[in-house]
Amino acid sequence: MTAVPQALADARSSIDNLDAALVHLLAERFKITQRVGELKARLDLPPADPAREAEQVRRLRTLAEASQLDPEFAEKVITFIMTEVVRHHVQIRDGVSPVEDGNVGGSR
Amino acid sequence: MTAVPQALADARSSIDNLDAALVHLLAERFKITQRVGELKARLDLPPADPAREAEQVRRLRTLAEASQLDPEFAEKVITFIMTEVVRHHVQIRDGVSPVEDGNVGGSR
Repeated sequence: MTAVPQALADARSSIDNLDAALVHLLAERFKITQRVGELKARLDLPPADPAREAEQVRRLRTLAEASQLDPEFAEKVITFIMTEVVRHHVQIRDGVSPVEDGNVGGSR
Repeated sequence: MTAVPQALADARSSIDNLDAALVHLLAERFKITQRVGELKARLDLPPADPAREAEQVRRLRTLAEASQLDPEFAEKVITFIMTEVVRHHVQIRDGVSPVEDGNVGGSR
């Protein structure tokens, strides 16, 4: 009986490790999209690029299928992230500082 | 002038690499939560564990702050993922196969 709660604890420890990696990846991703937003504002490019986004979704669905992750779920997560990034690019274009007290990436 | 589109292309190439890593992390995370769901069903544990989830959110917000990612955004992403996982655990408990043609992780 003690073996089973141990199995749950072990699984949770792995989930925690993966989640930490996830947060750090997202942090790095937002550092890059922040630069993209500034570049787009400087070049007068639109904050969103539907063709690029469709290509990202298509590619990530394929990667999800290859790694046995539900592609619908992968699409929902990436769309959620991309929506946040575009909102952020709009703020940069409009001269609203999206960076307050050192935080990058969104809705505060 | 060509230098700037190159900067955008470079940034996008990095974003694509990070997104591929993100999808693979999510795939691995769902493999583990699938096992947790089966374990919980076998032990008659509830599909959701609010105390554990609150602790996950608290910890990931702290990690987000440390890596300069907006903690609100990190919380939204992780909550979205956890909601999907609990939905999945309910399906396992109720004997609905969440695994169809080899895909794991969700809403199909």
